[in-house]
Amino acid sequence: MKLLEERIQKDGIVKAGNVLKVDSFLNHQMDIALFNAMGEEFKRLFANADVNKIMTIEASGIGIACVAAQYFNVPVVFAKKSQSVNIDGDVYSTEIESFTHKRVYNVIVSKKYLSPNDRVLIIDDFLANGCAMNGLLDIVAAAGASVAGIGIAIEKGFQQGGALLRARGYHLESLAIVDAMNAQTGEITFRAQ
Amino acid sequence: MKLLEERIQKDGIVKAGNVLKVDSFLNHQMDIALFNAMGEEFKRLFANADVNKIMTIEASGIGIACVAAQYFNVPVVFAKKSQSVNIDGDVYSTEIESFTHKRVYNVIVSKKYLSPNDRVLIIDDFLANGCAMNGLLDIVAAAGASVAGIGIAIEKGFQQGGALLRARGYHLESLAIVDAMNAQTGEITFRAQ
Repeated sequence: MKLLEERIQKDGIVKAGNVLKVDSFLNHQMDIALFNAMGEEFKRLFANADVNKIMTIEASGIGIACVAAQYFNVPVVFAKKSQSVNIDGDVYSTEIESFTHKRVYNVIVSKKYLSPNDRVLIIDDFLANGCAMNGLLDIVAAAGASVAGIGIAIEKGFQQGGALLRARGYHLESLAIVDAMNAQTGEITFRAQ
Repeated sequence: MKLLEERIQKDGIVKAGNVLKVDSFLNHQMDIALFNAMGEEFKRLFANADVNKIMTIEASGIGIACVAAQYFNVPVVFAKKSQSVNIDGDVYSTEIESFTHKRVYNVIVSKKYLSPNDRVLIIDDFLANGCAMNGLLDIVAAAGASVAGIGIAIEKGFQQGGALLRARGYHLESLAIVDAMNAQTGEITFRAQ
């Protein structure tokens, strides 16, 4: 998606350790007009996927998922990162290792909000090694729901998550795929799509 | 806001310990059509507040804030609940005690995304004792920014947060104010607005 790639080139900052900071528009401060363009593009890419629910994971996936949901007219469910006393014990649960936060999260979704009738579009801001996505896929599988597709804002194409998910047959669409980035020069190379 | 009150009556569940569960439409599964109606109402209530930024706190405020932001044409910044390696050290920081999670969070906002030029509308899903809101107000004050208003989905009117904030002169608008609720009968009483 040209608009997102241009924005990453303009405002993204490459840091040592394969970190791409996009917190001025994507995952701390959020440009809602950009999110609308992304939502429209997700709808175009998954127009025939028969989506009836969007799923994401807190926190930075939520804004993108909620704005995108307007183009699908479906509710959003977000996986929560820790057991809350406000959530019944009746949950699907999995563990996810976070690259960013260098820790393991327990992630839950209430059984009330995922069922075998659901065709779920999973949306998230980043895909790198795929740990978070595999956790969400575990939860969808545990619910007996179907994965209608996986929509990612930025895929780190030099990490293995995207390739492994495509090899498993998932309909994965990443709006921008970074194939290389250089913390010295700040250069970012996108995969042609 | 009639639509939200009716939805709380229909789908909200009162639990012991002053817990109102609205996770079927507000803060776990999210009804985006309802969020749009809420966003439109926030815009009506804060039409003259000269808002140039919306601020919220992860996780359950993000969806409401992002959908509402479309009616204001402004970006959203969300306060993060823990130090991330993706965030520079240059942050405004405060501690917030969570009633729901029975713990203290460190909450941060990058200094890049709040400045003295900002007129901030703070949006959140719940207001009860006001701990989270006071933390967000601390951060806005530390940035030298102005509070254009505070927009809440559901205020627990039988707790002190709302009254204290109004006494301090803030323009606080809650779309639904629960004045009483009964875990035995499930009855919910709203304040007339």
